Amino acid sequence: MKFSILVEVQLLEGISDPAGATIERALPVLGYRGISDVSVGKTIRFTLEATDLSHAKELSEQICSSFLTNPVIEESTITIEEVS
Amino acid sequence: MKFSILVEVQLLEGISDPAGATIERALPVLGYRGISDVSVGKTIRFTLEATDLSHAKELSEQICSSFLTNPVIEESTITIEEVS
Repeated sequence: MKFSILVEVQLLEGISDPAGATIERALPVLGYRGISDVSVGKTIRFTLEATDLSHAKELSEQICSSFLTNPVIEESTITIEEVS
Repeated sequence: MKFSILVEVQLLEGISDPAGATIERALPVLGYRGISDVSVGKTIRFTLEATDLSHAKELSEQICSSFLTNPVIEESTITIEEVS
């Protein structure tokens, strides 16, 4: 069975976010006001072959915590959808 | 009124995605098989002050197309949620 996986990675609360801070500083200069709390994250999408949903969940959590994210500074949410 | 905005940016179909390709090459080496179509995108979250939902939509679309994304190589989806 094939599953479509979406991993959303965000910096943990309190971790410095230079990209977000740069966007927040730049927007008023460009004429956009009233914008705050800018944060930048990343998404990783992939297709995974697994025997069933729980196997897909286990595999994607393993990949996520061991390779795609740094749990010391990042948190992630995984969304799994069956494709075929 | 305050709105919470989520902008999800993905590379357009056919645009080279070196980060995704690197992840796809690395995973089998680490023992994970059956993974394909890896793509990497980014998310930008912020809080926006606007008079109403349509104003928030207009402002965030402007910010998105003029500053946060490059429409030549990227596509984006905007999710708006009222905060207060």
